Amino acid sequence: MTEVLGRSARKRQTILSAGRTLFLSNGYQGTSVDQIAASAEVSKQTVYKHFGDKQELLLAIVDSALEASVTPFLDRIALLADTTDLDADLTALATDYLRAVLLEPVVQLRRLVVGEANRVPELARLYYEQAPARTLAAFAACFSRLHDRGLLYIPEAAVAAEHFAFLVVGRCIDQALFYGGPPVLKSVDPARHAQAGVQVFLAGYRPRTAAD
Amino acid sequence: MTEVLGRSARKRQTILSAGRTLFLSNGYQGTSVDQIAASAEVSKQTVYKHFGDKQELLLAIVDSALEASVTPFLDRIALLADTTDLDADLTALATDYLRAVLLEPVVQLRRLVVGEANRVPELARLYYEQAPARTLAAFAACFSRLHDRGLLYIPEAAVAAEHFAFLVVGRCIDQALFYGGPPVLKSVDPARHAQAGVQVFLAGYRPRTAAD
Repeated sequence: MTEVLGRSARKRQTILSAGRTLFLSNGYQGTSVDQIAASAEVSKQTVYKHFGDKQELLLAIVDSALEASVTPFLDRIALLADTTDLDADLTALATDYLRAVLLEPVVQLRRLVVGEANRVPELARLYYEQAPARTLAAFAACFSRLHDRGLLYIPEAAVAAEHFAFLVVGRCIDQALFYGGPPVLKSVDPARHAQAGVQVFLAGYRPRTAAD
Repeated sequence: MTEVLGRSARKRQTILSAGRTLFLSNGYQGTSVDQIAASAEVSKQTVYKHFGDKQELLLAIVDSALEASVTPFLDRIALLADTTDLDADLTALATDYLRAVLLEPVVQLRRLVVGEANRVPELARLYYEQAPARTLAAFAACFSRLHDRGLLYIPEAAVAAEHFAFLVVGRCIDQALFYGGPPVLKSVDPARHAQAGVQVFLAGYRPRTAAD
């Protein structure tokens, strides 16, 4: 029984992986279920049995891609709440965040979802809830905790989270939608760029001292 | 002669306007030159005579749409350099900026261009250069001038411009790609949201006084 379930789960993974590669390279309209089945070396019926239709398959692909890429980063943000060196740890996290959002598969996935947003609004909603919204919520929770510890002064955690995120990755993530991730990453020094954003964030959100 | 040129220019405008409406509603792939010609009440040959092919027409549409929407805003940014009330004028400009980027045709144009970025990279380049890049350059020039006037302390004008822009519109412009402009605009108080961004910007970029 485990053996059978194992095989089915593996097939599912193979289809997801083949579909992701094809959708990201050729777009949703430019990819057929036939191509995905051929690339995964399964029958078209197997694809339909696992995923219903092409659109359901796209939703499953986006969901699994985000689960794999976003969740470890959320854990990393949560750890920042316990920092003993806020400036250094915030800058290191910001640098990794910037690099992560400019990875080519991440940018291609965004482009794919945005390009289909009118036709498949539930895909756009799924993406936003699973990626930007969860990331912003994790930053907000972390900053609230840092406020409680007296390391930051955060009157509105959700707003502070969005300020932090877009100071660090805003222009780059936006430009990457148009030029692709790697050219944008090549045009900046990620550590320096992240640090500049962190400095403005800290200027806005560092607790006032008696001397201020 | 003027009369003839006038008619040709009007026809051109009619085709651009019909094409824009159709492309923004139905996407690039979902729109045919036949439909555009019918909607503009001209022959297909007239469309080709004016614009070459469907892709050239899309480039011309994006170019003219951005020229009409971006240029007046650049003039407005330039005026800010002469402000006599920085906090108020910066907040007012930020509020209008936020409202402008969330207009539905603006968001739909972004979606259309991002969705075609892989297939038509020159369209994505044209969009970025004509809209975000020109806007950021105008903010950079304005902030340099405010630095010279002693009202801001701006070590790197391009970085300050990007911080300002994405503190004010970053999360909203990003979310609007997924949800559309109007739902995002309805979820925020634009003046309050803009002001929160401006405050962090000023905390980071206000000149240090002797007391600091």
